[in-house]
Amino acid sequence: MAAGGAHGGDTPREIEALIDLMARLPGLGPRSARRAVLVLLKRRGALMAPLAQAMAQVAVSARDCRICGNIGTSDICAICADDRRATGEICVVEDVADLWALERAGVFRGRYHVLGGTLSALDAVGPEELRIPDLIERVATEATREVILALNATVDGQTTAHYIADALAATGVSVTSLAQGVPIGGELDYLDDGTLGAALRARKSF
Amino acid sequence: MAAGGAHGGDTPREIEALIDLMARLPGLGPRSARRAVLVLLKRRGALMAPLAQAMAQVAVSARDCRICGNIGTSDICAICADDRRATGEICVVEDVADLWALERAGVFRGRYHVLGGTLSALDAVGPEELRIPDLIERVATEATREVILALNATVDGQTTAHYIADALAATGVSVTSLAQGVPIGGELDYLDDGTLGAALRARKSF
Ligand SMILES: [Zn+2]
Ligand SMILES: [Zn+2]
Repeated sequence: MAAGGAHGGDTPREIEALIDLMARLPGLGPRSARRAVLVLLKRRGALMAPLAQAMAQVAVSARDCRICGNIGTSDICAICADDRRATGEICVVEDVADLWALERAGVFRGRYHVLGGTLSALDAVGPEELRIPDLIERVATEATREVILALNATVDGQTTAHYIADALAATGVSVTSLAQGVPIGGELDYLDDGTLGAALRARKSF
Repeated sequence: MAAGGAHGGDTPREIEALIDLMARLPGLGPRSARRAVLVLLKRRGALMAPLAQAMAQVAVSARDCRICGNIGTSDICAICADDRRATGEICVVEDVADLWALERAGVFRGRYHVLGGTLSALDAVGPEELRIPDLIERVATEATREVILALNATVDGQTTAHYIADALAATGVSVTSLAQGVPIGGELDYLDDGTLGAALRARKSF
């Protein structure tokens, strides 16, 4: 087998490389990556070429928002650039996935701040590894009335919430967190819109 | 919401388009497509750009083998072009996925013929929609001793096997099929290598 490889005797190297890259996506193991690539191979013009182009375009144009850490296609994301959104409220989330979940629910009309993770002693993630200094800076310079901590109801999420609340205590800004409604151990990205909306509306002082 | 879309308020249009394309892959629904795109967005340089490039390259270079219907990167696939593979045996499969499964098992050293599906009265798939005429032509022109029908143990797979066996009856070529070992209703692509190998070795006259 001259051109032999992991995915079947004589599969061309380019196709094997593509399968290996696809298998690195969440939710796709080696087998499902292979099946996905086969579908792409059969639909080269209708699916593979447009997908490759869309991906290449986004890879070049995507950037982290300089203000909030959301991912968009300009230095300031569409949310931070939207004058119609309230500026006094900052909703703090761990991840862009959580921001997307809240936006899908359509329950918040203020601004966001994406931490990029949670504090974690185990993984040696301190405040400097997240966007926590940037948040404190925003609260100090923007006319902020309220910081809503929309962090996951996990140990690390709540540790991070407490850390931020302490760090902001001296500023006098109102610090709230999502109400009961977020199940214990639950992750925001998996909640339905109704639960998210109710939890936001019933938010309580932290 | 000026730039509002299906995946969350102000997600840029390019990113939404990418999620929609990803959601068309097997095994990825809208939610998992979103999660996959988020991982790509976070790993733009290390994963998204190389994946886009690999996909674009394969979209341009992939072609169906003129002889057997396998997908490769030249007009004649690596298997058909390999002098060391026996020419007297043609293993007939429904799909390239099945060819890959047999190659992964490493149990067959002859040539393949990919039908591109099965006969189906329900879906109005006749012999002309598959590569059955090409197979009959190959048997007539290549020095073929044996045609191994490695079709799925489904109703359509077995209908197709019978059709091909009948069509080749007059040629005198030996027509065999995979032995018991393929479970009833089972699909080749899901079998382990041992089962595939045993079924091939114990193949019987059809
Ligand atoms: Zn922003
Ligand atoms: Zn071929």
